[in-house]
Amino acid sequence: MSNRKALGECLNAVHATTPLVHNITNYVTVNDVANVLLACGGSPIMSDEPKDVYDITSICGGLNINIGTLNERSIEAMMIAGMRAKELGHVVLLDPVGAGASFLRTKTAQSIVEEVKPDIIRGNISEIKTLAKGSGTTKGVDADAADTVTDDNLDEMVAFVKAFAEKTGAVIAITGAIDLVADAEVCYVIRNGRKEMSRITGTGCQLSGMATAYAVANPDNKVDAVAAAVCLMGLAGEIGWSRMQEGDGNSTYRNRIIDAIFNIDAKTLEEGAKYEIR
Amino acid sequence: MSNRKALGECLNAVHATTPLVHNITNYVTVNDVANVLLACGGSPIMSDEPKDVYDITSICGGLNINIGTLNERSIEAMMIAGMRAKELGHVVLLDPVGAGASFLRTKTAQSIVEEVKPDIIRGNISEIKTLAKGSGTTKGVDADAADTVTDDNLDEMVAFVKAFAEKTGAVIAITGAIDLVADAEVCYVIRNGRKEMSRITGTGCQLSGMATAYAVANPDNKVDAVAAAVCLMGLAGEIGWSRMQEGDGNSTYRNRIIDAIFNIDAKTLEEGAKYEIR
Amino acid sequence: MSNRKALGECLNAVHATTPLVHNITNYVTVNDVANVLLACGGSPIMSDEPKDVYDITSICGGLNINIGTLNERSIEAMMIAGMRAKELGHVVLLDPVGAGASFLRTKTAQSIVEEVKPDIIRGNISEIKTLAKGSGTTKGVDADAADTVTDDNLDEMVAFVKAFAEKTGAVIAITGAIDLVADAEVCYVIRNGRKEMSRITGTGCQLSGMATAYAVANPDNKVDAVAAAVCLMGLAGEIGWSRMQEGDGNSTYRNRIIDAIFNIDAKTLEEGAKYEIR
Repeated sequence: MSNRKALGECLNAVHATTPLVHNITNYVTVNDVANVLLACGGSPIMSDEPKDVYDITSICGGLNINIGTLNERSIEAMMIAGMRAKELGHVVLLDPVGAGASFLRTKTAQSIVEEVKPDIIRGNISEIKTLAKGSGTTKGVDADAADTVTDDNLDEMVAFVKAFAEKTGAVIAITGAIDLVADAEVCYVIRNGRKEMSRITGTGCQLSGMATAYAVANPDNKVDAVAAAVCLMGLAGEIGWSRMQEGDGNSTYRNRIIDAIFNIDAKTLEEGAKYEIR
Repeated sequence: MSNRKALGECLNAVHATTPLVHNITNYVTVNDVANVLLACGGSPIMSDEPKDVYDITSICGGLNINIGTLNERSIEAMMIAGMRAKELGHVVLLDPVGAGASFLRTKTAQSIVEEVKPDIIRGNISEIKTLAKGSGTTKGVDADAADTVTDDNLDEMVAFVKAFAEKTGAVIAITGAIDLVADAEVCYVIRNGRKEMSRITGTGCQLSGMATAYAVANPDNKVDAVAAAVCLMGLAGEIGWSRMQEGDGNSTYRNRIIDAIFNIDAKTLEEGAKYEIR
Repeated sequence: MSNRKALGECLNAVHATTPLVHNITNYVTVNDVANVLLACGGSPIMSDEPKDVYDITSICGGLNINIGTLNERSIEAMMIAGMRAKELGHVVLLDPVGAGASFLRTKTAQSIVEEVKPDIIRGNISEIKTLAKGSGTTKGVDADAADTVTDDNLDEMVAFVKAFAEKTGAVIAITGAIDLVADAEVCYVIRNGRKEMSRITGTGCQLSGMATAYAVANPDNKVDAVAAAVCLMGLAGEIGWSRMQEGDGNSTYRNRIIDAIFNIDAKTLEEGAKYEIR
């Protein structure tokens, strides 16, 4: 913790360096992921063809792997790009969308964890439990209520996420009503965001793209960088909501959140971030 | 008709149960379909990999099959998921986008009708005629003017749609300037909506996702449920348009429509729905 | 130049004829491409399955090929559709996204240029240089700064683009801070647009779809038609920006640009277009 990097500094590093992120991500939320990467100061490129990803990931700084609409071709691309990115010392993030909901998703996420050894794993609690314990109940791509992180089980969950971070060597981010971002040593407990964000598709996917960019720009402070991205996403949800008007709904909210990411600077992030470190 | 369920009750059932819908749908409008499902009170999951869809559809309540950007892999996934969903008694909807515009689309839609036996088929008049008669002229993915449902041919069209509903055992929804939603017994003739909705991509696809959620939440009243979804979509088009300002265009209109779906409650739907039953 | 068609007339021809455009395009920006085609007065259809595209492209007026998320299947579809479209005398546009960034992208773009012989090639300067010279440095899908068209190298760049147009027989559009649209004889030098457009994903892809529609509607004046589309896109970027409010960001800007395309008429285009002809 002595070497902790301030969240605002993490943001400034992204703005200063325009990290280029290769995304192998689902076709549901891919446009939002691209616009969020641009909003936060990064630059996106998408490619999921096995014969293309080796070259593409080589020119990037990080790789965001999201299994939301995986298929046999894209799984092959994930492995090729993942191995190449690690070989080059790039940041690799895994978003195990729907792990626990199907055999293929669980197996693919596990294979990526074991073979690629991602630097960051970001998911909801059910997905992370599935990876950590081979269990966890998943309701579609949403976390099951029984798994939720609450104030009552917080000590236990902090210990769990630190242990999984230690086991995998990755920064682990579990997002929900309370977000946890941990490596083996420290755990950020983050309370930004609004429950209405769950009525928009893809805020988790957007966060994964952004967290990759943050880690690329802050290579020696990955846990702080991911925590900054998580706080930024939640704060954007709060600011976006504050701009909602009579008659607005989830489509306008989506736009407002991305707009907020575009506009938040280091000072706003520092002042708006709500977290403690355990 | 004695057992008809009110449209507002159909809406309340969706809000009360958060139906989980598996979508195998085109990559053009998939994000809007997801956000509309969330707006209306449902929950979306997308998967189109043959090795993934059996598991995914098993945990859902309904399956929305849209052939808008079909390919060999997704066609295989449609058949696997469709058969599994029917086996489990789930609602299956078919949106035969572009049936009549290519051999592959026509053949695929016909195969799904014959083998999967969907509970609901929703399309424009050209697509439905193609399925019903093996004819129908399609201009790309839009209905041909010669096929339009009008007041002049309404009696004939009502008879046609009821007959096709009887033949297939499905609720049939034909959407256009006048919408028809029928089973073998009754036909809703619906006059909600605005012509400007045709200047947005994917309002039909969005409706198909929403109609699936409505039928899942109202399993014993599928024709009423689909009619409620069709009225809701049209009413959202009217409310969305009423919020348009100087300089706004089709992109803002898209957001306004989804926002309206997010906000419409049972009372608003009941008061705004414009339909007669034949 | 004696037969030059006014930009406003090009726009009116699109509005009068609703050109139907077949798009084989990337899944990142495909929804925006569809909505921009509808905004500008055209009609979109998407298909990338080799067994579907022959039929689909046959009923259209133009084909927009964008290699942004190419894969083995879609490359095959591009070749089939491209050859069929040319056989029928349809307009074919190539958007060589990321040419120079990977071997597969460069090779695919070159193959399409050589075998399909597109009527229009639209890209950033790095992509076009890669096609013209087999060189050009590409930073992901964005142009490299070293390649930029500026007032200092304008004479040289105009000569380059005319020469490449002559060699390929295509209208060449290079877009950036200064846009160039040329055939072998004339070159439009266009100064519409705003730098903030680069903070939105897909304005280039949107332009490619729209340029295809413009060329379909103005078959005897392709260079004027493409220049009209380029001016329209840039002007929409200016008008869209003028409507931005405190707290808005790139997501709202995206909507505002498409809205502006929806609303711009011939008079507004003529008055707002900033270009000279060399």
